[in-house]
Amino acid sequence: MQIKLADSCGFCFGVKRAIRLAESNRDSITMGELIHNHRETERLREGFGVRIANSICEIASNSRVIIRTHGIERETRAKLGEITQDIIDATCPYVTKPQKIAETMSGEGYFVVIYGDRMHPEVKGVLSYAGERAAVVADAKELLSIKTGDRVALISQTTKAISSFNLIASALLERVSELRIFKTICNATFENQEATRNLAKEVDMMIIVGGKNSSNTKQLYTIAKEVCSQSYLIEDATELQAQWFSGKSVCGISAGASTPDWIINEVIKKAKDF
Amino acid sequence: MQIKLADSCGFCFGVKRAIRLAESNRDSITMGELIHNHRETERLREGFGVRIANSICEIASNSRVIIRTHGIERETRAKLGEITQDIIDATCPYVTKPQKIAETMSGEGYFVVIYGDRMHPEVKGVLSYAGERAAVVADAKELLSIKTGDRVALISQTTKAISSFNLIASALLERVSELRIFKTICNATFENQEATRNLAKEVDMMIIVGGKNSSNTKQLYTIAKEVCSQSYLIEDATELQAQWFSGKSVCGISAGASTPDWIINEVIKKAKDF
Repeated sequence: MQIKLADSCGFCFGVKRAIRLAESNRDSITMGELIHNHRETERLREGFGVRIANSICEIASNSRVIIRTHGIERETRAKLGEITQDIIDATCPYVTKPQKIAETMSGEGYFVVIYGDRMHPEVKGVLSYAGERAAVVADAKELLSIKTGDRVALISQTTKAISSFNLIASALLERVSELRIFKTICNATFENQEATRNLAKEVDMMIIVGGKNSSNTKQLYTIAKEVCSQSYLIEDATELQAQWFSGKSVCGISAGASTPDWIINEVIKKAKDF
Repeated sequence: MQIKLADSCGFCFGVKRAIRLAESNRDSITMGELIHNHRETERLREGFGVRIANSICEIASNSRVIIRTHGIERETRAKLGEITQDIIDATCPYVTKPQKIAETMSGEGYFVVIYGDRMHPEVKGVLSYAGERAAVVADAKELLSIKTGDRVALISQTTKAISSFNLIASALLERVSELRIFKTICNATFENQEATRNLAKEVDMMIIVGGKNSSNTKQLYTIAKEVCSQSYLIEDATELQAQWFSGKSVCGISAGASTPDWIINEVIKKAKDF
């Protein structure tokens, strides 16, 4: 099997930074999963003693705590500050940005619309900075049920698709008199999406590697599937199935921003042998 | 001939206000044409001694000067202040708004895009408040030749069509990372356009009455023409032509925001007789 890897895929700047912080702070606790990749967080636990706390109640006083790349809610951050002062903020700077925008826009009286998955920790975090007059929408249709008032600020989860974001902006424009649009989708997302789309056009099948709870990975899978119907989403090489490769000659591989190289390499190695 | 008048047409709030100011300030000078209607400004000259100065050089010291509904350029306003302190500002408040937005946005470092006719006095006025980093565009295509940078504020001439404004907003959104959109098209424009569009659907022919240099009148004519091919733009009843009415039974009439009722009534009266 011939393998082609996407020109841009895998670890982004924010994830690399967070892992560096975790590796250099042995035996610390991450507030939620540091990144959306079980095997990598498992590696950090085994190799560096970095454990995950799923709730603030699990954190003992004065522990060293690392805030996850996706950021945490404002209230959680405040409570954390009462438990410990030893906090390392691994929130991706591209996530801190929409948090700050949400806070500023809310302060200036704008209704804040966030395009994203309302159950995703990044979105929960950003929403917590947006005050009472705010809503999360998954698509333009969801705007219909929301009363936004006449002055609206629109931001996006960093890992969403720009095409849907633009549709939401256009739908908002129809109904408000002032609209502020902040394109907070990060560059790594743009580049990985573009590279995945291009690669999917020239292969017989696509494998997307990444956490199934990873927003940007799911987005890559959606894009690959649009272009190449034979696309599969896996967390690691153990999920590869021989029948996917039957009758195919070129396999494209891409990976989410939270997928480490060692997992991608395992997948490449195994896929080659089919 | 059966005549139907548009549900909303003729003098808007800003024009009524300006004429009230002119009538109550006999023998004053207007800086440019107070409104875009020659016959009405002629009436103000004959009945109230209100003359038009086309340039600041024509204004004697300490004259009473009325600023036109469309506003004037910032530099002209400053020079005017050196010639006289007796200034009455008849700038429509809906025009003052985009002037202020242009000034604020420019001050905050945004590139200012103005959708409008670059030769129109209102647009010249608004542009003068937007600083160096600003451009006027007549449509989305014109954006291609402009370097805007990454943070852009978009405003509109008060009398343009919202559909084109939204197209420009969408085109800008494709290329900038932060976009502020201010819908500065005024309500009277919306209402007159909507009423003209509705009327044009149910008649055999349309007459649009208004100054041929009036932006909102021209816009009404464009809209009428889109729906009803037999549409005509006239400044007053003298321009009506018998052959337009031949074989028609219902004539719709609409008028720009600067067209006085007495001109509309003359047109109705004459059209009825065809």
